[in-house]
Order: sequence, then C-alpha cells, then structure tokens
Amino acid sequence: MAYRVGVIGTGAIGVEHLRRIQQRMGGASVVAVSDIDGGRARDVAAGVGARALATGGELIAAPEVEVVVVTSWGPTHEEFVLAALAAGKPVFCEKPLATTAEGCRRIVEAEVKRDRRLVQVGFMRRYDAGYRALRAVVAGGQVGVPLLVHCAHRNPAVGESYTTDMAITDTAIHELDVLRWLLDDDWTSVQVVYPRKTRHASGHLRDPQLVLLETARGVRVDLEIFVNCKYGYDIQCEVVGETGIARLPEPAGVPMRSEARRSVPILVDWKQRFIDAYDVELQAFFDGLRAGQLTGPSAWDGYAAALAADACLEAQRTGKVVPVRPGQRPGLYG
Amino acid sequence: MAYRVGVIGTGAIGVEHLRRIQQRMGGASVVAVSDIDGGRARDVAAGVGARALATGGELIAAPEVEVVVVTSWGPTHEEFVLAALAAGKPVFCEKPLATTAEGCRRIVEAEVKRDRRLVQVGFMRRYDAGYRALRAVVAGGQVGVPLLVHCAHRNPAVGESYTTDMAITDTAIHELDVLRWLLDDDWTSVQVVYPRKTRHASGHLRDPQLVLLETARGVRVDLEIFVNCKYGYDIQCEVVGETGIARLPEPAGVPMRSEARRSVPILVDWKQRFIDAYDVELQAFFDGLRAGQLTGPSAWDGYAAALAADACLEAQRTGKVVPVRPGQRPGLYG
Amino acid sequence: MAYRVGVIGTGAIGVEHLRRIQQRMGGASVVAVSDIDGGRARDVAAGVGARALATGGELIAAPEVEVVVVTSWGPTHEEFVLAALAAGKPVFCEKPLATTAEGCRRIVEAEVKRDRRLVQVGFMRRYDAGYRALRAVVAGGQVGVPLLVHCAHRNPAVGESYTTDMAITDTAIHELDVLRWLLDDDWTSVQVVYPRKTRHASGHLRDPQLVLLETARGVRVDLEIFVNCKYGYDIQCEVVGETGIARLPEPAGVPMRSEARRSVPILVDWKQRFIDAYDVELQAFFDGLRAGQLTGPSAWDGYAAALAADACLEAQRTGKVVPVRPGQRPGLYG
Amino acid sequence: MAYRVGVIGTGAIGVEHLRRIQQRMGGASVVAVSDIDGGRARDVAAGVGARALATGGELIAAPEVEVVVVTSWGPTHEEFVLAALAAGKPVFCEKPLATTAEGCRRIVEAEVKRDRRLVQVGFMRRYDAGYRALRAVVAGGQVGVPLLVHCAHRNPAVGESYTTDMAITDTAIHELDVLRWLLDDDWTSVQVVYPRKTRHASGHLRDPQLVLLETARGVRVDLEIFVNCKYGYDIQCEVVGETGIARLPEPAGVPMRSEARRSVPILVDWKQRFIDAYDVELQAFFDGLRAGQLTGPSAWDGYAAALAADACLEAQRTGKVVPVRPGQRPGLYG
Repeated sequence: MAYRVGVIGTGAIGVEHLRRIQQRMGGASVVAVSDIDGGRARDVAAGVGARALATGGELIAAPEVEVVVVTSWGPTHEEFVLAALAAGKPVFCEKPLATTAEGCRRIVEAEVKRDRRLVQVGFMRRYDAGYRALRAVVAGGQVGVPLLVHCAHRNPAVGESYTTDMAITDTAIHELDVLRWLLDDDWTSVQVVYPRKTRHASGHLRDPQLVLLETARGVRVDLEIFVNCKYGYDIQCEVVGETGIARLPEPAGVPMRSEARRSVPILVDWKQRFIDAYDVELQAFFDGLRAGQLTGPSAWDGYAAALAADACLEAQRTGKVVPVRPGQRPGLYG
Repeated sequence: MAYRVGVIGTGAIGVEHLRRIQQRMGGASVVAVSDIDGGRARDVAAGVGARALATGGELIAAPEVEVVVVTSWGPTHEEFVLAALAAGKPVFCEKPLATTAEGCRRIVEAEVKRDRRLVQVGFMRRYDAGYRALRAVVAGGQVGVPLLVHCAHRNPAVGESYTTDMAITDTAIHELDVLRWLLDDDWTSVQVVYPRKTRHASGHLRDPQLVLLETARGVRVDLEIFVNCKYGYDIQCEVVGETGIARLPEPAGVPMRSEARRSVPILVDWKQRFIDAYDVELQAFFDGLRAGQLTGPSAWDGYAAALAADACLEAQRTGKVVPVRPGQRPGLYG
Repeated sequence: MAYRVGVIGTGAIGVEHLRRIQQRMGGASVVAVSDIDGGRARDVAAGVGARALATGGELIAAPEVEVVVVTSWGPTHEEFVLAALAAGKPVFCEKPLATTAEGCRRIVEAEVKRDRRLVQVGFMRRYDAGYRALRAVVAGGQVGVPLLVHCAHRNPAVGESYTTDMAITDTAIHELDVLRWLLDDDWTSVQVVYPRKTRHASGHLRDPQLVLLETARGVRVDLEIFVNCKYGYDIQCEVVGETGIARLPEPAGVPMRSEARRSVPILVDWKQRFIDAYDVELQAFFDGLRAGQLTGPSAWDGYAAALAADACLEAQRTGKVVPVRPGQRPGLYG
Repeated sequence: MAYRVGVIGTGAIGVEHLRRIQQRMGGASVVAVSDIDGGRARDVAAGVGARALATGGELIAAPEVEVVVVTSWGPTHEEFVLAALAAGKPVFCEKPLATTAEGCRRIVEAEVKRDRRLVQVGFMRRYDAGYRALRAVVAGGQVGVPLLVHCAHRNPAVGESYTTDMAITDTAIHELDVLRWLLDDDWTSVQVVYPRKTRHASGHLRDPQLVLLETARGVRVDLEIFVNCKYGYDIQCEVVGETGIARLPEPAGVPMRSEARRSVPILVDWKQRFIDAYDVELQAFFDGLRAGQLTGPSAWDGYAAALAADACLEAQRTGKVVPVRPGQRPGLYG
C-alpha cells in the first residue's frame, strides 16, 4: 500500500528526491522516471527497478503512477503540474511552481476548479527545524506581535552566469515564501536598494542588494541578499516583536578555543544547510496524501511568492516602491 | 529482502524501536514480538501485523526471525543475547548488555568463539550528530592530543527510587562508553568524590557526585553527575587538547531577547536530547548487517563500560582510587 | 597646573561631569559653576569649593576659568559655545552642539575663523570600548571594505512627552554621529519608513521607525529605532564588509543556566550602557588640550550629525528619500 | 589632603602602581620611592618629583610617608609589611604577602596586636567587574546554594624557569584567594592529579595539572592549571548551585563572521585581562583608608591562600588528599 511515484527529471535534485523516497519514506516507492535525456532516465530507472518513460506526459498518464514528482528544468514545471492536475494526480513540484506569476495563477485556477489540493511546492525551509521552532515562538506570542524582520541570505560566491535578477528569483524567493508563512501575512509592497558593490562580484552583477518589504499587517522586512560574501553560506532571520526578539538558530557546530579565538564553524555548502528539511518536506507530502489533506506550501503560496518576485524585479529596474496585489485568496487555501 | 526482525520486550523503548524499524528504516520489518506481559505483546503485534510469541527464547528460535532486538528488562538481556549468539542471529541489545561486567564478559567470550561480530549495544550517543562532530574535530587533530576532558551530565530531577549507585549504572554509564569512543582510549582508574548535597535530592541519594577518571594514555576526566539540577537536561563535554579546546555543541534553540535577558532554551526532557541518534544507531545496525560488518558499540564496549561502572561503584563505597583492568582486547574487536 | 574648569548647567549630567572631573581626571579641577537655578548652582559650588556665578556668560568671562563645560539646556548651547569661542577658551559641549544645523554651522564658522580647534562635542559613543574595538577591526581591513551596516537602537520605554521627531533628534542622533566616525564616511541621503506600530507607544508616537541611510562611498545603513521595545536598552551595530562581518560587542554579563534557559542579562538603564565612555571622553578632552590638539568629535561633526538629523525629520514628514549635502569640510577638520 | 605614598620596589608592577596613583587616584600622591637598584629608584623618583630613599626601611620610617606600597621582590614582602605595621602605617602589599604561610601568620599576629586593619593584599581579581558580577549573582541566590565550582586558569606559554610548584604559588594562588571570597567559604582539603603532559611544556614541568579542592561547606572545586595551552590567556569559573549555574563573563571582543567561522578574540596577554581591576583595587584601598575601614583582601586572606598553597605543594609531592586547617579567624577579620 505504498504510494507508486513517478519522478519527472533525473538531474541532481531529482535523483536526491528519488533516493529519499526509496530509502527514507515508509510508504512510497518510485515506479517510473522520465528525463529529457532518455539514457539518463533509463540508468536511473534501472538502479531502482523502475520503468523509464519517454516523456513527462507519458509518465503522468501511466496508470501505475499514482503520484507525480516534478524535478525537471524550471520552465517545464507549469506544463507538468497542469497535466498532473488534469489527470487528478497529486504532484510535488520543485521550485519554481512556474516561471511567472501568471503561470502560477493558471495552476491555482486549475486546482481550484478541481476543488481539492493536489499540489505541494518544494519550499523546503518551512520544514527546517530552526524555522519551525522560530515560528512556534512567534505564533506562541513569546515576542508579541511582529513589527519588523531583519534577514540576510548570504552565499560565499556565485558563478559568472548568476545575474542581478537571480538575486530575486533564485535567492530571495526563499524568503519571499518562508516569511509569509512565518508571519502568516501577505506582501503588499517591495523596494530594492543597491549598497556599494563588492569587488568580488562579476562585472554585470549588483551584489549585495537590500530588499525592503512590507506586509498587509504593516510588518517591515529588510532582507540583505549577498551572494559573494566570501565567508560562508549564512541565513539570518530575526523577528522584532512588541515585547522581544526571536532569531533563527544557527546550525550546530563544535565550539572551539584555538589560536586566540573562540569560534564555531559556519557552513560553506548551501546543500548542507537545509538537507534535513528535504526529508521532512517529502515525508509531510506523503503523510498529507495519506491523511487526505495536503498542508504544505500550496499552489497559492507558489503564486504569492512569484508575484512578489515579479514586483522585486520591477523594483530593481525602477528604484521605486512597487505594490504587490495578490487579490483574494480562494477558499481552497484556507 | 528486508531483514525480518523480532523484538523482545514491548515496553516504551521497545515500542519506539519497533516504530522506527517499521517507519524509518528502508530495509527491515518487524515480524515477531514477545513480552513478559503476553497481552501487551499481542496488542503490539496486532498493530504491525507481526506474530506474538510467548517468550524471548521462542522468538529467538523462530525460523522467520533473522535479527533480534532486545529491549526487555535489563536483568534478562544477558540470557537473550547469549541465546541469539547461540542461534547465530545478529542482535541489537539496549543498555545494559548485562547487569555485571562478568555477564558482559560471558557475551564477549561467546561472540569471540563464533569469531564474528553479531552484537551491537544501544549506546546511542555515538550516533548523536554533536558527538560525531566533536569526535571528528578531536580525531582531526584540531585541538592537538587530548589531555583533559570536563563533562557534566545533569537531569532536572529524579524520583525517589533513584539511588546513589544509579548515578553510575544509569547515568554515568553513557559517558563511560562515549568517552572511550571519543578519545579512542581505555579507562585505567576511577575515583568518586561527593560535593555538598543539594537539598533537592531525596534523603538516601548522594547528589551531585564528581567522578574522576584516568585513561591508558593519561587523559584525566572530571565528570559531574547531578540528577536534581532543577534547570534542565544538560549534557556537557569539553576536550582540552595540547593546542586548543573543543566542546560538544548545545542543542539548537531559538535565541531570544526578552525581559532583560538574551536567552536560549535548554531541554528539560531527556528523551528529546538524543532522539535523532536512536534513528541513526538502528539504521547503522541494519546498514552494518547488510555490509557484512557491524561497526557500532560492540559487546567488548559493553563489557568495558560495565567494568568501569563496577569500579565506580567500589569507588563510591570506599572513597579510594580504584583501578580498572579490562585485560587484552580480543582481535575480533579491532 | 591642573586645568581650571567652569561648568555651565548643574543638572544631572552637569553634576556627573563635575564629579568626573574632580575625582577621576588627573589634571583638571572645577573652579566655577553656573545654573539657571542660582540656588542649585550655589549648592553644587559649595560641595566642591568652587565659585557660583550668576550666568553662563559671567562664567565664560571669569578670568580664573580656563576651560568651559556646557551641560545646560540644549537650546542654550549655541550661545555659550560661541561665547567661549569668542573668549578663546576651549569648550566641551554636551549634545546637541546646537538645536539646528544652521546653529552648528555658525559655530563651525566661528571656530574656523579662529583657525584652531577649541570645541569638543559630547558624542561619547566614540569613546566606548566596544565601538573602538569594532572600528579597529573595520579600519584594520579584517572584514574588507564596508558595504552595509545593520543597526538597532532600542529603549525599554519612553514617556508621554517623547515625540516622533525625538526618535531622530534624541535617539538616532548617536548613530548619525558614530557611524560617520566608524566608517570614516559622510551621509548623502536618508529615508524613513514606519513599520507596524507597537501598542506600547503613546498615541502620538510612531514607534518603531526604520531609518535608511546612504553614505558617500555607497554604504547602506538600516537603523531600527524602537523606543518602547520593553525588553531592555539594546544597541546593535553590525558592519557587513566584502569578506566578513563584525559586530559591536554585547555588554558583559554573567551567563547563567536556570529555569530551562541559558541566558545573559541585557541592560535596562541606558545610563549604564556608556558610563565608562563618559570618563574616557572627558579624559581625552583634557589630554587633547594638554597635547595642544583636540581629536574628539568636532564642531564639524556636530554640524554633520545635525544636518543628517534635519534630513531625517524631512524624510519622516514626506516619506521621500532626502539628500544630505554637508558641503566642503574646512581644512581645520582634517 | 591627598595621602602621601611611599613605593618600595620600582620594577614593572611598582612603576605601574606608581603611575596609577599619580594619574588616576583622586586623593593620593607618591612622595618617596626605594629600590634595591638605587639608580633605578632615583630615575623613577625624578620622573614624579618624589624622593629616592636608600632602603625600604628608610622609606617606611620617613615622616613624610603616610602610606606604604610594597612592590619589591616577593621574599622581602614580609619584612616590609611587618615594619610598616610596627610604624602604624597602612600598607598595600603585592602578592605574596609572605613566601610562607608562617610568614603570613606572623603578619596576621602583628596586625591583630595593633587591633586595626592596616594591610591590604594585592589580590586584584576581587576587583574585576566580571568576578564581582558573578559574586553578586551567587550571593543573590540566583543559582541557589553553591555545590561545585569548575575552574580553569590557562596561559599560552611559560618560560623555562617556570617550575611545577609555581603552578600553585604563582598561578593557582589567584583562585585560592578569589574562590574563598566568591563562595564566602574556607578550604579544608586539597588534592593534585597530573593529566597527560603536553609536549609544549619544558622537560621538568608537569603541565597541565588538576587541583581538586574542598571547602568547609562541602563545595568541591576542580581547577585546571594549564600554562602552555597555546591558544590564549583564559580564565574560566563556573559555579554550580542547587538551582542553576553562573559563569564568569568572557572578556568583551568583537564578534566576527569570516573564513567560515563565527569567532570572538581571546586575550593572549595576561596583563590585559585584569588591567582595570588594578585601578579599582588601589582606589578601594585609598577609599578604605579615607573611610577609616579597609575592606579588601586582608592579611588573613593572604594567610589563608598561602596555607592552601602549602597544602597543594604537599599534595603535588605526595599524591595524597592534604587537609588545610587555618585555625580560628581572629575577630579583627570579621
């Protein structure tokens, strides 16, 4: 009675999710895979005793596939998620849900039409133990009503192909989602200012950037995006409430005293930072299916983050404060 | 091809391990259980579609049982482990391996006679991420050769039935094992001194206690055992090496600023402290079986810890420095 | 050969400075005081064997007064500093140097005309050990070129008389000065946004506020002003550089483990936070006089901070980004 | 009406104290100095307009000297303190009060005979802000009744001339005093054990050492002495009480994030660690004189520390638990 899963896209993240499902999830098993590189799909399929299918469409249509996992190239996500919805099959889709807010909106509409939540988006931070603990503190009123949030998202370095807009679409996108969830609130406006540029960024890249956001309840967020910070992969989040302040825990590390310093290691590889959260998010997806109720990041959440990202891109270009207007949340999304 | 597991003892820890095996382990499945309370065994068995057997002996003998997990009452462990060894079946045994060093010694001899490692003892701290990170730092030479270790093992409170010797056999026993592994060293002597007694301990209980240990390489360990410390469940371990100091990481918690204090929570419930380590130790057990090589805490480790514990009990009674002489480690244990 | 000092204004801060000069400074002694409350001046004078004079003007003119300390009501500062300059007497003036940027400008011009630095402004944070250590780290290149600074200035509570503009003129004014010195840079623009208001602020007060500043070198500063934060008096400053981050040290406090929390006290009384810095700034003032060279916060620094404060007030009213244009720094100020 | 002070011994510490008295103390002034090196005494005297005297004895006898500061070579302290007592002049004596417990005892007896406290010993840690804050927490009952204290005293390195007994007489001596004061308690027994020796110690030196102490109230102290720890000058003190734990604050330093580590500097130079405490202790001495009541470390405290040090030396030699029996404290010492 394990769920029979089909995985579309067998790149790095696809293979990792596949391994998770096979080895760590109690009630799920991969039965089919597809990839734009057919040979690769066959190799991966052979390794786990699954079937390789020629296309994502075929995979979604295959009768033995009950649940779809989309880990293909971003621009293909919308098509596959819509196809899974059309087939009435639950679908776990990696970020982005679609490359535009409009694309996400189409998915929302398709899901609303079915009147049942079938889609979970791969915003894994919501499953990080640190963020969950922080949310519990905030929701529990331990710092009072939130008023401000100070955030930073820092990578040691990025490649030449990383562009100024990717600071929003690839990097800030995580905060655009997780802060909505952390605060249980919605974005209403965004602004982007450019501090002095680091010499370690490539010529075309504005780095760092400071993204300023406002929510429906009036919370102000300042989010530093700094993708060539050199020193480590470092995610900071501090909620200032009416009576106190709560902060995202630092990843654990061995405290040392050596060479005239007390110190603790900072992660360098982003893959280590939320590695446990991937396990938890997938388990939550299958647990939700079993319970008849998905509770993870929804198509609406994917849409809301995409809409804010679009506004940030406009704010990057114009230097203006740009409003974000998600419209009415359909009842399906609570 | 999942391992077919029999669980002897369906008390709290037994049920937890059973659930772990069913839900989190890729390649293992519980097929039989037994308990001194037959009704309880039947209830638990029914819940997971396993067979309830009348005794641990029957369970070990059952042909469908490939692997034995012993989570019964401590005084029965030795018998069941010896029976599993006699049957040539791998056995995961919760602490203690046996209630006396002599009992452990008999298990070691039985295993050596089979010339194959079949026993893993449930010293879960070796699988805690923090201890593993600390060991990597020490083994990597980042603090130089270890010279001293400062430890504390604190519980908020214990019941009236907790006695002075249990500070060794139930509490210090974890350090008696994990420090041997952390330092890759052996105990040579122990001493126990009694500080001023806390008013929060019951009349018959010496609490706190200070256990002083020495290893074969000359490392000195001071271990504070304080089981009515009131403020939390707190495990401290600090290795002082020739060039620096490394410390066991604190469990993660949300840093706060409130009511004129910066603070981070301390766990109160000991079950939370090493909860992840239980998953990892059992996974390692089955991974080891699959790889044909158990690498976790061995019968010899169980014996060495029990021998040191016996010496500590004598040191408690006499106030003397008591030598520990484990004898020659059989080749089977590397 | 101790400096003979006259103190204008014997309120709380005046009496404290007077005591500092009498008891802690090697080479200075108070010989005259004045206050708008003549009786008070006489009482204070009697306590230290000094002469009470009727007005600040008389005090400045008194031949036995070599050095003037101005600790009277803010609106009187400009007049007394100008008079001291006219008399060619060195003057230590508490914040503000004058209540408007124009007033400060007049003092700058008067001092430039004398072509000698005679004025030191009481921006005591420059003498705080923590800020000095932070500046040494930044100036030493240990975090690379500064790009962003994240600051917070939090008070537990303020009275009903504290108004929205005082968040700039009484509170942010310290950062407006100390960050110029920390970064060795000048303000070029300011912006103020209002987060959700805390319920703990009085009806007329916007609290918290977020002040966004830009420097000539392009550094972006976000400064949270939150004067009813409830939990303590808390000053935060974090410099993000091209290769790392340096932070203002927290005031020392006894780390504790109790009641399920690790914690360290946060100050509540702002007077404790920079208490040592007051001693150091006054000592530096007299040491500078003795060395023939004042090096502390100058009239120009007072002017630059006042100019930025004026811009912030406009930004509060308009919601716009307001430029700051201090003009050319006279050669006298290096 | 400043106290006229004579300083015996113009080595490093003598000159530092002299400078403190001249520049930082309100009510004291150095009028005479002596040194075994007469030329040196004359140079120092000339620098501050004091008189150089041929011997300490002459200095004590000189009518213009009201207060004596003894900073000469340790073995001469007893003689000078006794002479000052005989002359009825207050005396501040650097550590050690005398080189033996018997010598200290003679001073105690001489002072008791005069029935007035005239002696203060230079145990400066009692004036360190961190220790004072820790003591306030302990005395305030914030961690309940003290039961254990974990301490470490680490130096980065010592010279070839540093011997095994100096770990007690030069190093542990500070804890032997400050812990009595911190706990308001007396030593009753000591033990010394030798951990594995660091390769960084010279051939004749046992380093590190672990000193185990017991107090009259039953508190157990473990004190690690490690004078070639390489990484820094590091003083640790942790009081375990019935309800919680309080720890000596770390010296402030700039927290940084760089090169994949969060870190804070550790001091390397011991002179920096308690530099402020020297100012405070001397000020307290003169304040006490002025108030007619010395409250700092007394001759009795010097004796008690010396007695415990003697016991530690015996414990080093014998490996035994050695009792400490200070006898009845004279009423003069409260």
